[in-house]
Amino acid sequence: MTPSRLSGKMLAMKPKLTLHSGEFAHTASSARRIIQLPSPFHMRLGGVLPQVQIAYETWGQLAADKSNVILLFTGLSPSAHAAASPADPSPGWWEEMLGPGKPLDTDRFYVVCVNSLGSCFGSTGPTSVNPQTGRPYAAHFPMLTVEDIAASAHAALQALQLPRVRIVMGASLGGMSALAYSLMFPAEVDVLISLSAAVHSEPFSIAVRSLQRELIRSDGAWQGGDYPPGDGPREGMRLARKLGMVSYRSASEWLERFGRERADVAGHDPFGIEFEVEAYLEARARAFIGEFDANSYLYLSHAMDLFDVAEHGGSVDKALRHLRLERALVVGVETDILFPLHQQRQLAEALRQAGVNTQLAALNSKQGHDSFLVDMERFRPTICEFIDLL
Amino acid sequence: MTPSRLSGKMLAMKPKLTLHSGEFAHTASSARRIIQLPSPFHMRLGGVLPQVQIAYETWGQLAADKSNVILLFTGLSPSAHAAASPADPSPGWWEEMLGPGKPLDTDRFYVVCVNSLGSCFGSTGPTSVNPQTGRPYAAHFPMLTVEDIAASAHAALQALQLPRVRIVMGASLGGMSALAYSLMFPAEVDVLISLSAAVHSEPFSIAVRSLQRELIRSDGAWQGGDYPPGDGPREGMRLARKLGMVSYRSASEWLERFGRERADVAGHDPFGIEFEVEAYLEARARAFIGEFDANSYLYLSHAMDLFDVAEHGGSVDKALRHLRLERALVVGVETDILFPLHQQRQLAEALRQAGVNTQLAALNSKQGHDSFLVDMERFRPTICEFIDLL
Repeated sequence: MTPSRLSGKMLAMKPKLTLHSGEFAHTASSARRIIQLPSPFHMRLGGVLPQVQIAYETWGQLAADKSNVILLFTGLSPSAHAAASPADPSPGWWEEMLGPGKPLDTDRFYVVCVNSLGSCFGSTGPTSVNPQTGRPYAAHFPMLTVEDIAASAHAALQALQLPRVRIVMGASLGGMSALAYSLMFPAEVDVLISLSAAVHSEPFSIAVRSLQRELIRSDGAWQGGDYPPGDGPREGMRLARKLGMVSYRSASEWLERFGRERADVAGHDPFGIEFEVEAYLEARARAFIGEFDANSYLYLSHAMDLFDVAEHGGSVDKALRHLRLERALVVGVETDILFPLHQQRQLAEALRQAGVNTQLAALNSKQGHDSFLVDMERFRPTICEFIDLL
Repeated sequence: MTPSRLSGKMLAMKPKLTLHSGEFAHTASSARRIIQLPSPFHMRLGGVLPQVQIAYETWGQLAADKSNVILLFTGLSPSAHAAASPADPSPGWWEEMLGPGKPLDTDRFYVVCVNSLGSCFGSTGPTSVNPQTGRPYAAHFPMLTVEDIAASAHAALQALQLPRVRIVMGASLGGMSALAYSLMFPAEVDVLISLSAAVHSEPFSIAVRSLQRELIRSDGAWQGGDYPPGDGPREGMRLARKLGMVSYRSASEWLERFGRERADVAGHDPFGIEFEVEAYLEARARAFIGEFDANSYLYLSHAMDLFDVAEHGGSVDKALRHLRLERALVVGVETDILFPLHQQRQLAEALRQAGVNTQLAALNSKQGHDSFLVDMERFRPTICEFIDLL
């Protein structure tokens, strides 16, 4: 059901939400729940968060023996609202993948999607108020790692009395988080699904993300991170999003979609938008402004650069020996320039070397790194067939 | 001979140079000559330049019958100083390619390299003074096309009484300029060598260049193009250069060169440089600041987006039928993401369809689009063997 088809009655039933300070309002959803972690949270690279809350949503029914949990991590920018539910029928970021009869079949599984630590959609992050100062952490948030995202999600599941997960999964940053989770809590995970992720970032993707962060920090409105809540480096975020799109999609997709089509623009600014691909980037970038907190972006993006499975054992191969997975699925895409196919092969091969029954799917999707969000024709059956085997 | 090995006597012999207003001093060389075009120059998309000068350098001896001319166009940023010469022994941007016994053998050929119209190394461009206003053209320079670069070089050669060229060649923008030259003056060219160029730009490379231009224009110091001579959007140029490097090189090269090496940086800025690849980009970007005029960059970059062989005949194939080339060499590189290999195949195939005896060389260089500047191991023999056949 799409929002436009909601009856007035259903809208009236939607409970009123209280937003936390600095929170990005458009993502507030009545399906979202918050769990407060019981103890202070120690960050991996130093620093302690005295209070941590993790926002999450769930779909499906928990089995009596709690054996049907899927823990879903997100990429850099989505919230925990992966799909619609009776409490929030607005479409989620993975609507076609999650629901009754879908690959993440909620007739069978109890799916928990968490908003990453450091993000801005309900979980503790740079927009949260530091209880010790009474002001938002902003750029004083401690350095964030993928392992912190995994550990805080684990603490949330413990607080929710979910002692183990059947499947941990995610795409991009979410795939790294799922891999970290499997490494850090090997006895509590049966199956790993890694989509367009990797055991670490290579220099090309580090360069792209580093430049994105620099575009944000170069915007005077960033103010060293101390911009007013809800405001911030809009121009820097717009430019960083354009660079993001250049790296998220693929040259072959754009050649098919746009070719050398001219944009329908009035007037003639000699340095303005001329080609359709430029108009597309501008539209996508403008839509992103105000949707995501700039400091959260910096922390999460940097965490992707820092992540390295090898730190869990001296080398990738040694680290993966700690795993106690029953099975794994590694999915990658030919046109992905951020986490290219050779990194998918590397992960799958290392998992096999570590004794994990691993399936590798190299998809010929056109849409690059973003394919897991849009190429349902290929991703749906790949994930569905793997999960059906379980 | 490298500059450090120059004797004091030779240095003393170097004549003193007079710089033109707004000109970028470091590129001034005593080998550079200037030719003033005899008539006003009409730009392809409108506008007239009442006075145009083209800077050029030459190497070798012109044959009595003037049959041994190589016209060399440059990529976006180099000057006409492609190689050392007695008048200017400082190394040029293609030092290993041009000279006695080298692929562009100056024992055999008379090589003319032109600084492109619109550039800032002696040829008329945005830094030049508009004689009608007494001030630099800046962003009031008329819209520039690759065809204007070709036509102004042609006018320069006519003024120099060089009625035809044996080989027209160039890489990147220079390859586009060479292709335009062959199309516009078909009776005056025998041989075309196109390196890492294309019949037009595809949307991915347009997107990258468009974003580079936006980074420059977003810098407040750009001031709509009216920055003081020699000053300008240094921060925008630095960021644009970093994005340039991301697109000029290749992921596989960086993986080999940098891996996940940490940079040797003092202190600990949580958002600062951490990895070696970031330090490399910063060093390359800083070296570029002040070397190139920002408005020139905008015009030349935009010209690359606009270029389309199809405009010379309704389609690429029809346009190339105008050619009267004896032979052509098309060289591309597997790791080039700006002018990818399929565009090299497209150009070579279209040349063959047009009846041109065409050789295609698809090189497995690691260094992406920049390979023609650095991978001499592959580019030298490829070009040498082709030219030896002539």
